[in-house]
Amino acid sequence: MKRPMISDAFFNPGTIAVIGATKRHGFAYGVAHYLVNNGYRDKISLVNPKETEIFGLPVYPDITAVPGKIDLAIIVIPARAVFQAVKGCIAKGVGAIIIESAGFSEIGSEGARIEQEIAGILDGTPTRIIGPNCVGVMNPHNGFATTTNNLGVVRPGNIAIVAQSGVFGNILLDWVPSQDIALSKVITIGNRLDVDEVDVLEYLVNDKETDVIVLYLEGVKDGHRFIKTASKVARIKPVVVLKSGRTEQGRAATASHTGSMSGDDAIYNAVFAQSGIIRAYSIQELFDIAKVFATQPIPAKSDLAVVTSSGSLGAMAVDACVKLGMNLPTFSAQTIRNVRENAPGWMNVRNPLDVGPSPLFGPAVQAALDEPAVGSLILIPVVPQMVVENIAGSTMENGIPLWFGNISEIRARVPEKPVVSFTLGSPEWVRHLQNFLGVDIPLLNSPENAARALYELNRRGKRRH
Amino acid sequence: MKRPMISDAFFNPGTIAVIGATKRHGFAYGVAHYLVNNGYRDKISLVNPKETEIFGLPVYPDITAVPGKIDLAIIVIPARAVFQAVKGCIAKGVGAIIIESAGFSEIGSEGARIEQEIAGILDGTPTRIIGPNCVGVMNPHNGFATTTNNLGVVRPGNIAIVAQSGVFGNILLDWVPSQDIALSKVITIGNRLDVDEVDVLEYLVNDKETDVIVLYLEGVKDGHRFIKTASKVARIKPVVVLKSGRTEQGRAATASHTGSMSGDDAIYNAVFAQSGIIRAYSIQELFDIAKVFATQPIPAKSDLAVVTSSGSLGAMAVDACVKLGMNLPTFSAQTIRNVRENAPGWMNVRNPLDVGPSPLFGPAVQAALDEPAVGSLILIPVVPQMVVENIAGSTMENGIPLWFGNISEIRARVPEKPVVSFTLGSPEWVRHLQNFLGVDIPLLNSPENAARALYELNRRGKRRH
Repeated sequence: MKRPMISDAFFNPGTIAVIGATKRHGFAYGVAHYLVNNGYRDKISLVNPKETEIFGLPVYPDITAVPGKIDLAIIVIPARAVFQAVKGCIAKGVGAIIIESAGFSEIGSEGARIEQEIAGILDGTPTRIIGPNCVGVMNPHNGFATTTNNLGVVRPGNIAIVAQSGVFGNILLDWVPSQDIALSKVITIGNRLDVDEVDVLEYLVNDKETDVIVLYLEGVKDGHRFIKTASKVARIKPVVVLKSGRTEQGRAATASHTGSMSGDDAIYNAVFAQSGIIRAYSIQELFDIAKVFATQPIPAKSDLAVVTSSGSLGAMAVDACVKLGMNLPTFSAQTIRNVRENAPGWMNVRNPLDVGPSPLFGPAVQAALDEPAVGSLILIPVVPQMVVENIAGSTMENGIPLWFGNISEIRARVPEKPVVSFTLGSPEWVRHLQNFLGVDIPLLNSPENAARALYELNRRGKRRH
Repeated sequence: MKRPMISDAFFNPGTIAVIGATKRHGFAYGVAHYLVNNGYRDKISLVNPKETEIFGLPVYPDITAVPGKIDLAIIVIPARAVFQAVKGCIAKGVGAIIIESAGFSEIGSEGARIEQEIAGILDGTPTRIIGPNCVGVMNPHNGFATTTNNLGVVRPGNIAIVAQSGVFGNILLDWVPSQDIALSKVITIGNRLDVDEVDVLEYLVNDKETDVIVLYLEGVKDGHRFIKTASKVARIKPVVVLKSGRTEQGRAATASHTGSMSGDDAIYNAVFAQSGIIRAYSIQELFDIAKVFATQPIPAKSDLAVVTSSGSLGAMAVDACVKLGMNLPTFSAQTIRNVRENAPGWMNVRNPLDVGPSPLFGPAVQAALDEPAVGSLILIPVVPQMVVENIAGSTMENGIPLWFGNISEIRARVPEKPVVSFTLGSPEWVRHLQNFLGVDIPLLNSPENAARALYELNRRGKRRH
């Protein structure tokens, strides 16, 4: 039976119940603790028959004993007690439930049976359930989270992450701030007793804060339904997927559950291709592609330029672009004149443009952006750290703009051309360069990923025509 | 004519002349400044006809005016003056010269002509020249460097880096400390007017401090000579290469010089395969493979185990291993019993072994290492950062060992099996985990690189039989 769409109650609830709130340190403690400390104290009701007061808040023995309406219930009690709790939520008219508890179908048939029983009582109700065996949702735009991550370090943005695994989702959240990935929503769907990846796609396609959807999948629950929805969604918003279980042993490792689309990785390739979904093959590639879609326009032409201060890294970027079928056009006489004007004699003014240790990085970026034959740009600003630190006694932070020029401003003048970048250096160097380039010039993890991301932008442009 | 082997004078000179030492800030200043400040004050003589004193040291007008013997001359003067300086060095009997100046064959025919003239006067002398257009050498074991990098942050070790480009070499040195890559030598060979990659291989194969050789190449100068030497060297020490210019436009970007082996990337693949050289396809893969060869033994069998606390990352590692033809054997009943003993009910004890958020990571590593069917191990210790920070109020540094157990000690008991690892998290998390795992469990950049490195270790083992 067709279930109702999942609602905003999952991401912006007016009232919340935490079923299983406890004083004992651990995950269940952390979930309630996060909400109390992050602006949700007035909106949460705690439920636990063994407690009377936690964080100075009253604790109710049962969800039905909580006064008033509850939009979202978060369940963090042992698996065996979850069925009764869900029954209580349905009786209370709670429309959104997140079951974070583990110990269900991922551990065997007894757990699977409980999941089926719970799914059974949902029929005919408006209640939707995310989970079990997940960490629920995070919404960086309002600071709401049903897990224990420090959402304060995650920048609100327009990329939504959907992951099956809760552990993986949480670890990604520790990692994304260093990658300067700005998020709209994070949703871990766990064992998918009710809500699955298709429900989430249907929600995100209409979510105003989401422009790009990142999926980490271990298996699709219903292949036909997935293709039908994903095809529609991918026409509207780019969907980038990392699918593990590409080999038989990898599939065994993901312990795919009953109902998952089984079989060959080639089938998934066909499904993704048919749906217009972009497939990534590593975590870094997944997020580098997403970051570029989240910040860059679709280019008018696939020909591109590379501007670099290292000939070696420039050559790696060119290799990667050409391997993907992209072309680096010859610069026009005008562009060559524009660069040559102030260039030292040793500089070979061509595409790729290697400005070496000269102060011409900024002017070269400007000339390449203005070149009519060029649709997009890869920038590789690198220089030995000490060189930049030694400019008139500068710190790295001050030295970088002195060395490379005002790239953000130059870039802003030609917003219709995508610009991506790569660098190499110490973690401090990368962090300072990321701040210097700003959000409109994403810094990626390799020259290969820069090429792949631009390739995918171009493919999307072509599909649209 | 066969030239003499390059000597230790390049890496451990008793006396050094800096030709072109100057008071003006810039690269030439930096080179002398580094030596003066890093224990070489008593060993250097400065040469510049326009100066009389720099850093409180006398400055000689000409190399022939310097009293006593000079082992190594570093030339940092404009290209047009280099020929005379080299003539002076030869007259003085200097056996080792590094020309760091740019403006030679990389910028056109006039520069190429100067190179040829210099090469001409070397014939019949014992003098060897590295460069021009490079930053020379670094020796982390004695703190000697002919460039301006902060060698203090580079850990001395057993990996030698050979790169053509000076800029790239310097940038790599900024990057390697964060990767915990420990180096024996760094050699940038520039335009190779005399010393080329083959000379360097011949030196490094006998260098006691070097166990693994990393080559970044844009082209080989003499294909036949390269195959002959590289085949011999690769039998003794692993050689890992990253070759750019894989496409025609990439080759144009590297502006390969006269005499370089030209043509198709397929030829290079054949050359590398014939020589027993390992080819990497990205910077991170290059160094991840090198790091594993530098720290791990050749395994007795290619079957491996994966121990992880994230099922998702475990599945990615398994996929990558299986794609490369490696196998994850079923654990013996004994191993399963050893893990099951303390395992929570939800844990699925098999290979890959996902211990999830349990305290079983250490015991699982021990059981997998003791398993006779397993030749090597991939460890994926990950956990949401906050979980570790919250263990009894711990800091991340204290929490990590409490959570994962004494992995280094467990690993040390079975030194004959290679162990590699991968994690995901904030930069601080990665740094603390790197310290925790120690040098005998290298932390790599992706599950895919972990698989590739073990695959190459196994291939080397098979070639040896």
